[in-house]
Amino acid sequence: MRPQKYLKYLILPNLFGTQRTKEILSVNPTIVPTREEATEVVVSVFDYDATTINEYKLTSVEECLSFKDSNRVTWINIDGLRKNDVEAICNHFLIHPLVIEDILSMSQRPKMDEVEDIMLCLLNMLYYNEEKRQVETEQISIVLGKNFVISFQEDASRDVFNPIRNRLRINNSKIRQRSADYLCYSMLDMIVDNYFLVMERLGEQIELVEEEIIRRSNTRSLGKINILRKELIVLKRNLAPVRDLLNAIIRSESELLEDRHTKYYKDVYDHIVQAYDLSENHRDIMVSMQDLYINNVNLKMNEVMKVMAIVTCLLAPATVIGGIFGMNFDVIPYLHNKWGFFIAVGCMLIVPIWMLFIFRKRGWF
Amino acid sequence: MRPQKYLKYLILPNLFGTQRTKEILSVNPTIVPTREEATEVVVSVFDYDATTINEYKLTSVEECLSFKDSNRVTWINIDGLRKNDVEAICNHFLIHPLVIEDILSMSQRPKMDEVEDIMLCLLNMLYYNEEKRQVETEQISIVLGKNFVISFQEDASRDVFNPIRNRLRINNSKIRQRSADYLCYSMLDMIVDNYFLVMERLGEQIELVEEEIIRRSNTRSLGKINILRKELIVLKRNLAPVRDLLNAIIRSESELLEDRHTKYYKDVYDHIVQAYDLSENHRDIMVSMQDLYINNVNLKMNEVMKVMAIVTCLLAPATVIGGIFGMNFDVIPYLHNKWGFFIAVGCMLIVPIWMLFIFRKRGWF
Amino acid sequence: MRPQKYLKYLILPNLFGTQRTKEILSVNPTIVPTREEATEVVVSVFDYDATTINEYKLTSVEECLSFKDSNRVTWINIDGLRKNDVEAICNHFLIHPLVIEDILSMSQRPKMDEVEDIMLCLLNMLYYNEEKRQVETEQISIVLGKNFVISFQEDASRDVFNPIRNRLRINNSKIRQRSADYLCYSMLDMIVDNYFLVMERLGEQIELVEEEIIRRSNTRSLGKINILRKELIVLKRNLAPVRDLLNAIIRSESELLEDRHTKYYKDVYDHIVQAYDLSENHRDIMVSMQDLYINNVNLKMNEVMKVMAIVTCLLAPATVIGGIFGMNFDVIPYLHNKWGFFIAVGCMLIVPIWMLFIFRKRGWF
Amino acid sequence: MRPQKYLKYLILPNLFGTQRTKEILSVNPTIVPTREEATEVVVSVFDYDATTINEYKLTSVEECLSFKDSNRVTWINIDGLRKNDVEAICNHFLIHPLVIEDILSMSQRPKMDEVEDIMLCLLNMLYYNEEKRQVETEQISIVLGKNFVISFQEDASRDVFNPIRNRLRINNSKIRQRSADYLCYSMLDMIVDNYFLVMERLGEQIELVEEEIIRRSNTRSLGKINILRKELIVLKRNLAPVRDLLNAIIRSESELLEDRHTKYYKDVYDHIVQAYDLSENHRDIMVSMQDLYINNVNLKMNEVMKVMAIVTCLLAPATVIGGIFGMNFDVIPYLHNKWGFFIAVGCMLIVPIWMLFIFRKRGWF
Amino acid sequence: MRPQKYLKYLILPNLFGTQRTKEILSVNPTIVPTREEATEVVVSVFDYDATTINEYKLTSVEECLSFKDSNRVTWINIDGLRKNDVEAICNHFLIHPLVIEDILSMSQRPKMDEVEDIMLCLLNMLYYNEEKRQVETEQISIVLGKNFVISFQEDASRDVFNPIRNRLRINNSKIRQRSADYLCYSMLDMIVDNYFLVMERLGEQIELVEEEIIRRSNTRSLGKINILRKELIVLKRNLAPVRDLLNAIIRSESELLEDRHTKYYKDVYDHIVQAYDLSENHRDIMVSMQDLYINNVNLKMNEVMKVMAIVTCLLAPATVIGGIFGMNFDVIPYLHNKWGFFIAVGCMLIVPIWMLFIFRKRGWF
Repeated sequence: MRPQKYLKYLILPNLFGTQRTKEILSVNPTIVPTREEATEVVVSVFDYDATTINEYKLTSVEECLSFKDSNRVTWINIDGLRKNDVEAICNHFLIHPLVIEDILSMSQRPKMDEVEDIMLCLLNMLYYNEEKRQVETEQISIVLGKNFVISFQEDASRDVFNPIRNRLRINNSKIRQRSADYLCYSMLDMIVDNYFLVMERLGEQIELVEEEIIRRSNTRSLGKINILRKELIVLKRNLAPVRDLLNAIIRSESELLEDRHTKYYKDVYDHIVQAYDLSENHRDIMVSMQDLYINNVNLKMNEVMKVMAIVTCLLAPATVIGGIFGMNFDVIPYLHNKWGFFIAVGCMLIVPIWMLFIFRKRGWF
Repeated sequence: MRPQKYLKYLILPNLFGTQRTKEILSVNPTIVPTREEATEVVVSVFDYDATTINEYKLTSVEECLSFKDSNRVTWINIDGLRKNDVEAICNHFLIHPLVIEDILSMSQRPKMDEVEDIMLCLLNMLYYNEEKRQVETEQISIVLGKNFVISFQEDASRDVFNPIRNRLRINNSKIRQRSADYLCYSMLDMIVDNYFLVMERLGEQIELVEEEIIRRSNTRSLGKINILRKELIVLKRNLAPVRDLLNAIIRSESELLEDRHTKYYKDVYDHIVQAYDLSENHRDIMVSMQDLYINNVNLKMNEVMKVMAIVTCLLAPATVIGGIFGMNFDVIPYLHNKWGFFIAVGCMLIVPIWMLFIFRKRGWF
Repeated sequence: MRPQKYLKYLILPNLFGTQRTKEILSVNPTIVPTREEATEVVVSVFDYDATTINEYKLTSVEECLSFKDSNRVTWINIDGLRKNDVEAICNHFLIHPLVIEDILSMSQRPKMDEVEDIMLCLLNMLYYNEEKRQVETEQISIVLGKNFVISFQEDASRDVFNPIRNRLRINNSKIRQRSADYLCYSMLDMIVDNYFLVMERLGEQIELVEEEIIRRSNTRSLGKINILRKELIVLKRNLAPVRDLLNAIIRSESELLEDRHTKYYKDVYDHIVQAYDLSENHRDIMVSMQDLYINNVNLKMNEVMKVMAIVTCLLAPATVIGGIFGMNFDVIPYLHNKWGFFIAVGCMLIVPIWMLFIFRKRGWF
Repeated sequence: MRPQKYLKYLILPNLFGTQRTKEILSVNPTIVPTREEATEVVVSVFDYDATTINEYKLTSVEECLSFKDSNRVTWINIDGLRKNDVEAICNHFLIHPLVIEDILSMSQRPKMDEVEDIMLCLLNMLYYNEEKRQVETEQISIVLGKNFVISFQEDASRDVFNPIRNRLRINNSKIRQRSADYLCYSMLDMIVDNYFLVMERLGEQIELVEEEIIRRSNTRSLGKINILRKELIVLKRNLAPVRDLLNAIIRSESELLEDRHTKYYKDVYDHIVQAYDLSENHRDIMVSMQDLYINNVNLKMNEVMKVMAIVTCLLAPATVIGGIFGMNFDVIPYLHNKWGFFIAVGCMLIVPIWMLFIFRKRGWF
Repeated sequence: MRPQKYLKYLILPNLFGTQRTKEILSVNPTIVPTREEATEVVVSVFDYDATTINEYKLTSVEECLSFKDSNRVTWINIDGLRKNDVEAICNHFLIHPLVIEDILSMSQRPKMDEVEDIMLCLLNMLYYNEEKRQVETEQISIVLGKNFVISFQEDASRDVFNPIRNRLRINNSKIRQRSADYLCYSMLDMIVDNYFLVMERLGEQIELVEEEIIRRSNTRSLGKINILRKELIVLKRNLAPVRDLLNAIIRSESELLEDRHTKYYKDVYDHIVQAYDLSENHRDIMVSMQDLYINNVNLKMNEVMKVMAIVTCLLAPATVIGGIFGMNFDVIPYLHNKWGFFIAVGCMLIVPIWMLFIFRKRGWF
């Protein structure tokens, strides 16, 4: 009955939402990143050809510099970014300073760059945080060179590449027989595949909110729709540029990419296009839901107001009749009649019932 | 009168709707498909040239492997997907593993792929389930090779290709005189033609809802609009990529496609473009309908509220007059007059009638 | 006062509208056309060069087959489609079976096709049916060949080509000096010009509805807007593909089209683009009108509710005063005063007047 | 208080608006123009090279035909269109009949045409009619040929070319040193520059309406927004095709255009693009304004209804108390108490005050 | 309670807004700029190569003309525009008159022009005025020539190039080793980077308004949304053309641009694309907010109206009961009963309580 009571429910998830707005809007890729230095850096190296593989877990970046001269394919995965480390390894592998800057930057738009003999894919891994009900992003930079792939991740605790690691450990598996760009494809494929998991979670949230709207349509629902809309913005912001990124790879004529691998990249491209289409569907359903919500809220309100108006209206004639026979005229018919009172009260009952009958006939409730 | 009463009607079709939302949003082409193995697999083979035709109904995939060496055109249609079967036949026909993966995947976006000497068309057949009032999809993969077409369907119980089968059985019919890509065209043509049947059913639903809105505009109508909107999403999701698919075939320079058949593919392309245009019209009419619905609901509500307000307003003066002559002052004019009461009651009648007259003149009801 | 009364008006034009929705949505170019055979077929032939012209009115298609060998330009116009006739003439003129199918189809999307030595323009003539207030379409197929034009119309009773016929009958007129493709241009030009007449009629309807909305804004107005919106859908569905058709002709390198005629086709193209732009303007004005309608309806409703609320509110203090002096306490001041009643009634008058004054000052009505 | 009163204000500017709708929608470039013959035709000729200039003011078209053979640049400006005159001059200058038709047509879409050795720019000059508050158009056709420019205007009384005339009169001015296409550029530049003046006027109108909405938000405001929206349609209809026109000139490879003048045309192109962008901003601000208007109207209405509801609600308890002590029971407490009446009246005052206190605390007004 | 009171709050920030509308809409790049001559002109010159640098602060433009013959890279930065000065320096450096006109113009659309041996980048620096809460623009023209860069700014008091100046002062810094186009890149980079700072400020404003809407949703909120929308228009108007500008540079084949610097320009291009995307997000969140605002306002209003209607409705039965026993019939049951009064009053209490119970059960408040 108190708006505050309702607003209280509304405030809680939305204050939360304001925080989220801040996060979404405070994108600035150009300032010198105030990135905190990672407290620990984990370097893992896979050095393989079709028949042999060596796997290392190193704690310092310097140790992996020697792999540059390996004739086999080398995948160096660095979890945790420290400015010095990144610069050390990049300089060793002759990576252009602009690329280093991109790797160290924050909240970059996903993009693909071919600089000298190197190809950089910078994009975000997405995770769905079940607790906060938010889409979280982790920037990943994949540097593809002749015979090597170096990947930089921000957070050591999570990763989507375990299936690749397992496949690498199998002798003569396809990934072991192919060159470095096939490894790069596998990584992009894993990242894009993971987008669908995130979208599935969001889809479940949408479904939950839809069910709530259909059942109760309370005032929290619009707040929840607003929160979901923001997550869809985050999602879309990551999908569209990745689509461009993959399109750029397909059309690229870099020597790093073998022709026979084009169809694999095309396959990832098909997936990201589908993900983008799906996010459009998300949006359409959200709009549909909002219409439904507003309709239901109005419906409920209208019903209440209608009933109140009808009750008030039905009782008005009784008040008038009461007023008539309460007047102090000397001569009022039926006043001294034994049945007068009952006739009056009877009228008070019959008139509203008759009105009710009329209202119903006209389909007003 | 009770919102619950109305909501009850609303909930039923929409709960249904929530289920549908789940189906629409839970698209994930990248996970290893949890496709249940088909319980039965039906393999039908047509092996023909202009003058002779052999038709086989096989129960095991192995039996059809021998047709690879046939010099005539071979159409192998496999109803029901089992991983082992698909891999067996594809490997025998030298089909690329990525294509096999696509065939076995679920909820793929329709696409066309040229891989080595093979062309894959992956799209959905659409059916309209009259009972559930839903658009249902069945994935079909058509592999066009030199002299053969292999089609993979999920469900043996339904199919749109019977007219093709009949035409094949006629000696020297056009389809018998042409190469495998004409058969592929015929299949795509049949599938696209079937889209129009589905759209016709949807069109009928839209028409029914429109009529309901015009006649009654009850609260179920918006629910029904919401349900139809979701089906239109499913429809559009299938039409747009098929358009791209056919466009890709027309522009393809594959040797599998004879030049004299381009005009046939163009004809199917024209149809899918028209289908897409039509689905836009569906959407426009839906928006129109929703506007009409909201207008009608408001109209009805406004009428009720207006009548209630007017009745309440008309009776208010009578209450006041009753109050005036019910006061206990010693000196009240007309109180002891013989006609006083009747004058008072007369006023109670005349004032509202006069008000009514004014209201009508101003066009308020 | 009764919603039914209003709805009655609403239902009539809209039921009509539901019928229209059916017509708009039941497009299916792929089914074997259930086209009724025309009861009568009228064949008119113009066989001309710059100096001589022969005009024939034939009753059977066979009679015109001989014109194939004419060295002069031949225009065969066939009003009324019968499957056998169309096939007879087309086979004689060596027209591809796919083209024949298109000519016989129904509700095709307008398109241009170059097949072998022939160019097909398939589009709709539009007429505005004043009685039903609908845009009606009649499919016309124009086949342009070397030295001949064959046009197929559905309905013998109406036609937009009379000005062309008149110009043909003038010796040495421009159209007589030019080749067959100039005749084809003239026909397209006539058809497109006719679109503007239809749009003018629609424009008049829009104007009428706008005037009605401004003057009365009753509940029929939205129904009328809805009807007009559907006609605009029909219009747009015909304009956009004709634009593509003409664009395709301009870019075509067919030998049937003389270079010096390109500027004429460009001129028609400019007109269809303008028609398309104009239909966008129609749409914008419709949206504007709908906003205005909703605003006016709300305005009227708000006024009524406000007056009712104010009247009810103004009379409430009088009721209270009546109640105060109607109480049966022994001691009530002024009760026995000679002027008591008049003071009380005076208060009943003064309080509402004072309230009215306040309300006015605050600009509430 | 009477809707009519409000509607009266609304009708006046909008009836006007209906007239405008007619003008906007009755575009038909294809009918034989029913253009009235101009009552007077003014022909002005500038015949110049860098050092010498001759200026003539002629009253008949025939007199200017001799300039065709001038070796200097000739600008013939014809104010007022008469069919015979236009045909006479155009035939003399060997201009294609289609171009003549375009010049004589009405309400053409702006376009650029290269026909034989001539380039036609057909567009509209825009003027803002302060009195009618409308954008008015005047069609201008500029024919650029080798060494000559012929411009056809409809209305002799207004023109935007005076600055060009002044510059022409200065010896050795840039325009005198350049060829005919520089003159053509100058004219287009003047016309486009004039668009900005018209947009400035419209901008001022928008600003006025916005201020009115913020201050008073009365019912005329939406009418005014509707009128402005129509003018923006007229504006946009002229800007977009002129942008295409200038783009076509820049990409044209006509020999009439000197390479060193391309940057001048590019400059005009930049301006028209900016004008188009600006018209988008106009539109955005209009939408913003409409939202604000609806919000303010609702706000005002809500306030009134709220106050009425609160007053009615506050007085209800007093009515009840009055009713209680007005009952005729034998035993009613306090009835014979000396202070009974005052206690009752006190309650009548205290209850609403307490309610008021509660309402305020909850922030309801 | 008075709308005026609310409107008062509304007017203040919006009047302001009307002023802003004027500024946004009064764009006219074509009139002769009424630019006030700058009161002071500050000319700063950097003349450098990798090893040596000379920095000058001049007070007159003439002094810097000599640098034209310098073999080193020269950056002349002119703060404050005076027509004579600009023309003097431009003529000395052989810059085309059209370029001079652009530099002196006002409110130009950002653009890039290659004229003869010079490249002009004309764009706006954006600043966020914290006090007025407005985005302010300052036009900057950067002229890149062989070995020199001349930049023209309007306002000497602010500038975004200090980091560049600092880097220039370091011997052998990258910028010192490169040619003039690298300096030009650095300047564009600085300008675009600064856009993000402005967007961050706007983002903070959006966040503040969102928080206000969630907490209080008073009538000022929509006014604030409107103000922010206008700033977003200003922002978008500057971002989109700068994107085109940078795209044009990347695709340019000018000899002024070294191939090895393309990747740097690409980097700036990536940033401006991201900025544009971000401004789309701003817009989406604004729309979301407006929906939320309208919902909250309605919610609050509905609550108030509901409570009022319920209170009025609950008290109506008591009035009727009071009326019944206030009638003056001779025979009224219970009238003489000792407990009659208390029973009546009891009914007056019990009926509303029962109604309340029913209402609550139905979830009406």
